[in-house]
Amino acid sequence: MLTVRVELGERSYPILIGSGLLGRAELLLPYLKQKRVAIVTNPVVGELYLARLSRTLADAGVAVVPVSIPDGENYKSWETLNGVFDRLLNQRCERGTTLIALGGGVIGDITGFAAAIYLRGVPFIQVPTTLLAQVDSSVGGKTGINHPLGKNMIGAFHQPRLVLADTDTLRTLPDRELSAGLAEVIKYGLIRDPALFAWLEVNIERLLAREPIALSYAVQRSCELKAEIVGTDERESGVRAVLNLGHTFGHAIESGLGFGAWLHGEAVAAGCVLAARLSQRMGRLTEADVLRVVTLFQRAKLPTDAPDLGARRYLELMGLDKKIEHGRLRLVLLEHIGFAFVTAEFPPQLLESVLENADGRGIAARTPH
Amino acid sequence: MLTVRVELGERSYPILIGSGLLGRAELLLPYLKQKRVAIVTNPVVGELYLARLSRTLADAGVAVVPVSIPDGENYKSWETLNGVFDRLLNQRCERGTTLIALGGGVIGDITGFAAAIYLRGVPFIQVPTTLLAQVDSSVGGKTGINHPLGKNMIGAFHQPRLVLADTDTLRTLPDRELSAGLAEVIKYGLIRDPALFAWLEVNIERLLAREPIALSYAVQRSCELKAEIVGTDERESGVRAVLNLGHTFGHAIESGLGFGAWLHGEAVAAGCVLAARLSQRMGRLTEADVLRVVTLFQRAKLPTDAPDLGARRYLELMGLDKKIEHGRLRLVLLEHIGFAFVTAEFPPQLLESVLENADGRGIAARTPH
Repeated sequence: MLTVRVELGERSYPILIGSGLLGRAELLLPYLKQKRVAIVTNPVVGELYLARLSRTLADAGVAVVPVSIPDGENYKSWETLNGVFDRLLNQRCERGTTLIALGGGVIGDITGFAAAIYLRGVPFIQVPTTLLAQVDSSVGGKTGINHPLGKNMIGAFHQPRLVLADTDTLRTLPDRELSAGLAEVIKYGLIRDPALFAWLEVNIERLLAREPIALSYAVQRSCELKAEIVGTDERESGVRAVLNLGHTFGHAIESGLGFGAWLHGEAVAAGCVLAARLSQRMGRLTEADVLRVVTLFQRAKLPTDAPDLGARRYLELMGLDKKIEHGRLRLVLLEHIGFAFVTAEFPPQLLESVLENADGRGIAARTPH
Repeated sequence: MLTVRVELGERSYPILIGSGLLGRAELLLPYLKQKRVAIVTNPVVGELYLARLSRTLADAGVAVVPVSIPDGENYKSWETLNGVFDRLLNQRCERGTTLIALGGGVIGDITGFAAAIYLRGVPFIQVPTTLLAQVDSSVGGKTGINHPLGKNMIGAFHQPRLVLADTDTLRTLPDRELSAGLAEVIKYGLIRDPALFAWLEVNIERLLAREPIALSYAVQRSCELKAEIVGTDERESGVRAVLNLGHTFGHAIESGLGFGAWLHGEAVAAGCVLAARLSQRMGRLTEADVLRVVTLFQRAKLPTDAPDLGARRYLELMGLDKKIEHGRLRLVLLEHIGFAFVTAEFPPQLLESVLENADGRGIAARTPH
């Protein structure tokens, strides 16, 4: 088992990464305030892992309230959240009851947000079961739901007490979701770690083949990079924004196509390519580096051509971004592979031209299905 | 102008109390991150004070987005909150846009909660226009909405940057709301300040007659007491719970009769009397003190007989209280006037008997209308 610590003063917590962790109650018990938890999951993940985690906890004398919510980004809504509250209240869950998120990013985001605002805040634990959640969304305390006018518009910073990443759960992950998770791993290499990017260029096939050692390393290194950035800037007042490389474009893609059409990681992949292209047109990134970026995402079986929504629609959707400051859009761009920066200084006509040719300059967009 | 500081480290803020403050832009400007605010209010308060506050800000070069929500505790709901988000998103309010709550407790609770979770948190300022909001709800950072299964079940601790209490606004307050505010002032005397309680016994008629000097003193002293308690225990892990004297009973009353039937302060008054009676039966408070408590609330034109919901219904409603720990109800009781304590140790049959005779032992309950 590997441990990565997120250092946030009194809100610090460990990320435990390894095989068979769902069966080890002793890893969870020190983080429970009372011997009662509510496990939030969806039918798909619940079928696979709820019984196992529940038994582990029950055997250790912990009472478990299971809470099932529908599967998918479309359900990351207030209605779903309210359903969770109904259940918690009906089951008399208290301020000391820990909420456990068992699932992917949607489960983690909703459960974390529920924990942030139920009775004005209760403890929670992340048990991510997708690669995307293990390398990214379960770490850092960002929680929230979507609003019809934008993704993650409503939410809170609420740190978990513990992240328990059992890499065995990646075995049952659909191929498409494995690739979506790899998009975020590649993103870490792009923004902060050229050696990770180079390692991915060598090992991407091992990851797609789910070799446990390769996967564990990818999860660990991603968590280390994220923990380092989050530890410096918990509430995204500065450097944390680089984690959003590809995300402003990506959110526009997800929202423009309707949430759920593309997976988050797929939209991020295409978004990173747009950011790389804009960086290149601005004379920062070389053409050779853009090619390395596109090639690695393609090898990871991710879309590198964004859908053709038209520049105007893209700008409109991006105008609702949370990172807007004084009415100005801020973007994460690349100086070179391994170094991202945030800027509001870019020639609008270059951005428009990149967006107008989002789908690979006239070549029909490859849908990720 | 009087200033009371709430000391909470980097989240510290001042409460400014006085006459004519709505006209003084220089008090607000230092707390704005950008020259743009959204003022949340309801039609009744908006009619009286929105134009004035907006003009003050506009004259200082601040762009104002007015946001109107319906009036009343019934609307302290997710639907109302979502309406606020629609407006903020449509008006492209950003992370640096300050939300200003202009109104009473409902406006403050909803606006503060909106600020806590809009874009994962934006700054906010309280401009309380009722006595209850000036002495209590605008201070301390408790924000939230009601859930069909209980009051304030969903919310956050989110501190304002500034509380601006213009005592001129109390002139237009309906008598019933003035009394409701006095309930909380009396509560401060009961839990922590016997001298304040004695002062109220002498000056209650001056307060009902809205003498500015008396009102200012009541607001200032209440804010000092609340600031002191909140400064020690921001998130209610200990001593802050004494502020809830009468509130567990009060919430049961509000919820049992349907939100909005009784004002919050009215329910708190009757709830404090129940707490005093239980304290007396447990041999803590003297009969003479119970009489002082009942008499002062009555002189403040507040109900001292709780509605006859039956002990069983009371217990059921109180079973949903946020302060439940390990399934045990905790209550705030009185040792003597000026000293409250929190306990889970009380004979259940005494509690039941007090609740069974909630309406003054057979005397028909006096409704506050």
